[in-house]
Amino acid sequence: MTPPVCAEILSTGDEIRCGSVVDSNAAWIAERLEEAGVPVLRHTCVGDDRDAISAALSEIGGRAAIAVVTGGLGPTADDRTAEAAAQAAGVELAESAAALAVVERFLAPRGISISAANRKQARLPHGAECLDNPEGSAPGFRLRIGGCQVICLPGVPREMEAMLQRHVLPRIWDLVGIPAGVQEVGVLNTFGMPESVVGERLEGLEAGFPGIRLGLRVAFPEIQVRLYGHAQERGDLERRLGQAAEEVCRRLGKRVVSRRGEGMATALGELLRGRGQTLGVAESCTGGMIGALLTDVAGSSDYFLLSAVTYANAVKTAVLGVSPEVLERWGAVHEETARAMAHGARRVAGADFGLATTGIAGPGGGSADKPVGTVCIGLATAESVVGWRYVFPFNRRDMNRRMFAFLAMDRLRLWLRGDLRT
Amino acid sequence: MTPPVCAEILSTGDEIRCGSVVDSNAAWIAERLEEAGVPVLRHTCVGDDRDAISAALSEIGGRAAIAVVTGGLGPTADDRTAEAAAQAAGVELAESAAALAVVERFLAPRGISISAANRKQARLPHGAECLDNPEGSAPGFRLRIGGCQVICLPGVPREMEAMLQRHVLPRIWDLVGIPAGVQEVGVLNTFGMPESVVGERLEGLEAGFPGIRLGLRVAFPEIQVRLYGHAQERGDLERRLGQAAEEVCRRLGKRVVSRRGEGMATALGELLRGRGQTLGVAESCTGGMIGALLTDVAGSSDYFLLSAVTYANAVKTAVLGVSPEVLERWGAVHEETARAMAHGARRVAGADFGLATTGIAGPGGGSADKPVGTVCIGLATAESVVGWRYVFPFNRRDMNRRMFAFLAMDRLRLWLRGDLRT
Repeated sequence: MTPPVCAEILSTGDEIRCGSVVDSNAAWIAERLEEAGVPVLRHTCVGDDRDAISAALSEIGGRAAIAVVTGGLGPTADDRTAEAAAQAAGVELAESAAALAVVERFLAPRGISISAANRKQARLPHGAECLDNPEGSAPGFRLRIGGCQVICLPGVPREMEAMLQRHVLPRIWDLVGIPAGVQEVGVLNTFGMPESVVGERLEGLEAGFPGIRLGLRVAFPEIQVRLYGHAQERGDLERRLGQAAEEVCRRLGKRVVSRRGEGMATALGELLRGRGQTLGVAESCTGGMIGALLTDVAGSSDYFLLSAVTYANAVKTAVLGVSPEVLERWGAVHEETARAMAHGARRVAGADFGLATTGIAGPGGGSADKPVGTVCIGLATAESVVGWRYVFPFNRRDMNRRMFAFLAMDRLRLWLRGDLRT
Repeated sequence: MTPPVCAEILSTGDEIRCGSVVDSNAAWIAERLEEAGVPVLRHTCVGDDRDAISAALSEIGGRAAIAVVTGGLGPTADDRTAEAAAQAAGVELAESAAALAVVERFLAPRGISISAANRKQARLPHGAECLDNPEGSAPGFRLRIGGCQVICLPGVPREMEAMLQRHVLPRIWDLVGIPAGVQEVGVLNTFGMPESVVGERLEGLEAGFPGIRLGLRVAFPEIQVRLYGHAQERGDLERRLGQAAEEVCRRLGKRVVSRRGEGMATALGELLRGRGQTLGVAESCTGGMIGALLTDVAGSSDYFLLSAVTYANAVKTAVLGVSPEVLERWGAVHEETARAMAHGARRVAGADFGLATTGIAGPGGGSADKPVGTVCIGLATAESVVGWRYVFPFNRRDMNRRMFAFLAMDRLRLWLRGDLRT
């Protein structure tokens, strides 16, 4: 019988310990390990203190089969992970030729010669395997402490991620001495249903697909459906993942924004690009967020022409051509005003579609008639201009704004899919 | 001699353990504890597992004087913190009248009657002090485990933050049995110098202000200077914090964006509001980020009139009135184009100032002449229209865009302060 194989994560660094930096490395590593089928038992964070790191490593050595440690591999005096690992393993530090080569290969093309501080980076615990760093000067290393394979990586996310993907994940089962199989994760993004409803709709799905585990992840306001697959053979795994994704789409229908883990802005952009069509946006309450989301996608200039953030009524008239009578009669937050803004955005941008938001994100500005959380959305196409009104229950400005922006993009997405009658 | 008083943080929950959620609670709590003068030794995260939580609590009970635990106080079966704390303290669970009152007070106005699951939330370890939750239904509690005061709070950030601020921070020294004094933190936001330069400029500052510790925190692209003050008496503390902030301003000059910890968008907004002036923005490479940042400040409609995100040249002409000749002659990314965009934004918005960005955020789109990281900024005032060009070394689109947006806002901020000749 094989013992249960568990992993732990140790983050080192005073900036994390005292809260100046949020430890996003630990979450990223935990996700990768869980995806690879290795459950994570515990995360720990200690500061740049040799004894604290060494004590944590000794404890982990008695609990886990594999540990990923980040931080403390730099050239300065407060980088103490190698020392601490040597102490926990009961070995000495020694200069590693492989590690020195990593440092030299990084510095040479930059015209920098090796300093005493860099030379310190090449001193690894005796018996450790050096792990190449393709992105920076700090070599990582692997060392056995107690019953645990301890992998020490730099704290810089880009370097850590590249090294985990190169040196650890492909041979993780090998490292802990267990035959592997293949793993893969399928991700579908959804919008328009709360997490609990997505969960209900997908109930019992795992039963039909052995080897596939279902997980939900909130990326507000989207919900990601994650299919963690495991099999002995790649072709078999991909076939089963594809069938499971098909079943998710069947159950969630038009709420599935992307079958490839892409967000709303990317999915909407691909629909527009595929049709060779363009978009102009007029934003009030979303304050530029739709433009910022859409243009955060590289290549978005192919379909994104304009976002006009028009707060003041006079500017709605001057830039979008919204008539003062519309604003007078319906007010700034109304379906009719949203329609006029969408029409104006389409016209002034010379775009195929115009999309507009106007609403009350809070915290102030609500009324009995139009409470905080009210948003009106306008969509102008070649055939028609439609308006909608929604009210959301969030008390937080940032959540309302994000929900409003996604909802507006989703209206156009559904229209492009033919799921919306206008 | 008093023993060193140290804190630890324990986060519970499978969503954090397996990396679906980044543990931002731990960083927030660590910062508050460090500000209060209590150093944080270690953070730990375990899943929703009674034995794992209990084991972690027993270990912490042997190391720390105070511990803050988050998560696992909800009504469902996988909320196990109370059980685990009782186990670690060697006591039984018992229904607490105070805790039941917290649950009832939350549910009653919502017309919900107490379920068996809610009743479970009111079962606390025997001898624990119930901590009221002003924001939700889950009561917290305080319990001694080993030599440690263990404070258990919900995992929902809003609830946890309110409860830590209400029940823990004001009496933290009392809780661990040490006479306190007063603590306060002064925060100054800066922009325009890397962290290392801010650090150099402030070298030796602590020596002149006993009881004040200096910390730097990167909130990219701003650097926060934090002054952690400690004294026996409030008046004395405030006087010394004020003097230290004065000295920071003397050394960093116009790079100080705010003496009250406010970010660029808020500081710029206050300058505009104070003068009763207004702003229109034309954004290309920043894609609406300036509008989103400015309008994320409540009340920004007083001075923010327009952000026009104009990617396509034709839209720059249609919306902003940039002449086709300017675009033809200088191209989309040029100081002259930025000037024309700023001029157009000012005119079309009917604003006192026009601000414009056009540049190459990457990853593609760069050339030898205009590499990725190039940004041109235009500023239009009643007197003149000025253009600038900068090149930043970041390879990441998100970092470039953020730096471009802050830099543009900073140009106007400096102009309003009279620190910029145009």
